[in-house]
Amino acid sequence: MKLATLQQGGRDGTLVVVSRDLQRQRAVPSIARTMLAALDDWDSVEPQLRQVYEALNSGSIEGEPFVEAACHSPLPRTWQWADGSAYINHVELVRKARGAEVPESFYTDPLMYQGGSDGFLPPRGKVVARKEWGIDFEAEVTVVTGDVPMGATPEQAARAIRLVMLVNDVSLRGLIPGELAKGFGFFQSKPASAFSPVAVTPDELGDAWRDSKLHLPLLVHLNGKLFGKPNAGVDMTFDFGQLVAHAARTRTLCAGSIIGSGTVSNKQGSLWGSSIDNGGVGYCCLAEVRTYETIEQGQPKTPFMDHGDVVRIEMLDGAGRSIFGTIENEVDTQSAP
Amino acid sequence: MKLATLQQGGRDGTLVVVSRDLQRQRAVPSIARTMLAALDDWDSVEPQLRQVYEALNSGSIEGEPFVEAACHSPLPRTWQWADGSAYINHVELVRKARGAEVPESFYTDPLMYQGGSDGFLPPRGKVVARKEWGIDFEAEVTVVTGDVPMGATPEQAARAIRLVMLVNDVSLRGLIPGELAKGFGFFQSKPASAFSPVAVTPDELGDAWRDSKLHLPLLVHLNGKLFGKPNAGVDMTFDFGQLVAHAARTRTLCAGSIIGSGTVSNKQGSLWGSSIDNGGVGYCCLAEVRTYETIEQGQPKTPFMDHGDVVRIEMLDGAGRSIFGTIENEVDTQSAP
Repeated sequence: MKLATLQQGGRDGTLVVVSRDLQRQRAVPSIARTMLAALDDWDSVEPQLRQVYEALNSGSIEGEPFVEAACHSPLPRTWQWADGSAYINHVELVRKARGAEVPESFYTDPLMYQGGSDGFLPPRGKVVARKEWGIDFEAEVTVVTGDVPMGATPEQAARAIRLVMLVNDVSLRGLIPGELAKGFGFFQSKPASAFSPVAVTPDELGDAWRDSKLHLPLLVHLNGKLFGKPNAGVDMTFDFGQLVAHAARTRTLCAGSIIGSGTVSNKQGSLWGSSIDNGGVGYCCLAEVRTYETIEQGQPKTPFMDHGDVVRIEMLDGAGRSIFGTIENEVDTQSAP
Repeated sequence: MKLATLQQGGRDGTLVVVSRDLQRQRAVPSIARTMLAALDDWDSVEPQLRQVYEALNSGSIEGEPFVEAACHSPLPRTWQWADGSAYINHVELVRKARGAEVPESFYTDPLMYQGGSDGFLPPRGKVVARKEWGIDFEAEVTVVTGDVPMGATPEQAARAIRLVMLVNDVSLRGLIPGELAKGFGFFQSKPASAFSPVAVTPDELGDAWRDSKLHLPLLVHLNGKLFGKPNAGVDMTFDFGQLVAHAARTRTLCAGSIIGSGTVSNKQGSLWGSSIDNGGVGYCCLAEVRTYETIEQGQPKTPFMDHGDVVRIEMLDGAGRSIFGTIENEVDTQSAP
């Protein structure tokens, strides 16, 4: 099943069921007005939404045209957004550039940061930030959970996964060193993220969803040029069941919690990855290619994003059809305060 | 004006207006069903709530008895919970114990961590955790904001403060060193917090609310014995306008965002504070007295909390009347997973 949220209808938008081919939609106010409301009461709401989904796909109800640009993030705001760093290759690469070892515990205990969930960008929203903040994207896979009890096992946690989305976890690289040096983690360096127009149930992904991982290439274009296509199912050290369980170790998680994978990154043999131009699968953030350049050439040469730069993030099924719709964020440095 | 949220009525509870003396309440479903809904639409809702508040205080409407134990946290869950560390004395004390300097920037750039807001404890809720996690309380003052634009000045941010509350920011000291060593800040070490039964508008605090600080002693009892009574208006290096502005530097803040002061801590002359037994104003967390013991005696002697221990947090007005009601959290190690 595929769901989206229109920007109209208030702070939490308007829930619509979307056809598998992303061509048609249907608002469902008599079932649930918003995606948060649906998640609060998923067990009773989900079968009703599925009926609409099947009717849309079969053509037995017509619905209205689905327009990705009219969408907000599936959850325009929510209760919890915690982002893991499950692709250790990304961590290895960053540490290699500064000559540091990766602690052994990083392979058994997930890295995760507490994000802010009070306001996300629409999928086509502009990233408003100052150039000197070092504007970067991070392309990731995320899940939305139902209620998760404190101390849930990875297996229990995996069963609580309700929806899958993509995200651009916008990162301000210029602000990160100062914040991390203070010891309390990210805050100003992680502004509002943008999620894919469409959230899908795991069953919708078929064989591509197995072992609580999404086994498909994540496609990233920067200013229209392919920048990355790593497979999100490869080199993922912790699966989503493990990530959700990590988040729930000392607290319950409320329905509507979003848990992220961290920047998708494939090892590809030598030197922790290679660019598209060099025949590799490329990268899902600028920091990674800059790190690669630092290792190879002594300093980074790819700049961070500037006014007018556009990052596009999407994922295609085996037949080349878009699963989640497209995230497309243009940078606007001129409106930054 | 004083507001509270009853545990009944769904995940976000039921908003009630509470009389100044905390004796009577009135549900206001025709105005706003929940506190989150009131905050979403504050400009139109607030005058209507004030009419009910004045009628309750004057006795022109009777209402029902107000029972603190029936309350949830004013916001049982919300969109944003970010906690500053505005009492630098606390930071100085902790660093002194390990022989480290406080960086100069800490006096001009607030420390703040991104908390999880997806589920808070009721004011009388039990803290369920393992003893070996090192269970501690942190007594603090917090504010709830309206919408805050990105890049707001401290003055603009101060004007966006809608409500004031107290909080027990539960901390798991045994998990903190490992998490901070990973570099991404707190996560498992900061489980669900518990807020005071009542949230009040700043005007309700009269002269005690000035310069965006709350100038009254914060009272902390541990197992019935006075443990701390520092004045929350003293030694607060950053006021709430500055803390909210810090949180909004690179992002908007959504109405319903909670921003905390960090553990209240007074310097009291020598050695960064003194215990109640030694004639001082005491402390608002166990970590601070343990640090003090480490400096003075070479090692801590006060243990962290154990099964059955109870912390009580409240604040009285000049006439000795409770302003916010009482937070009272008992520790339950036996139910921890």
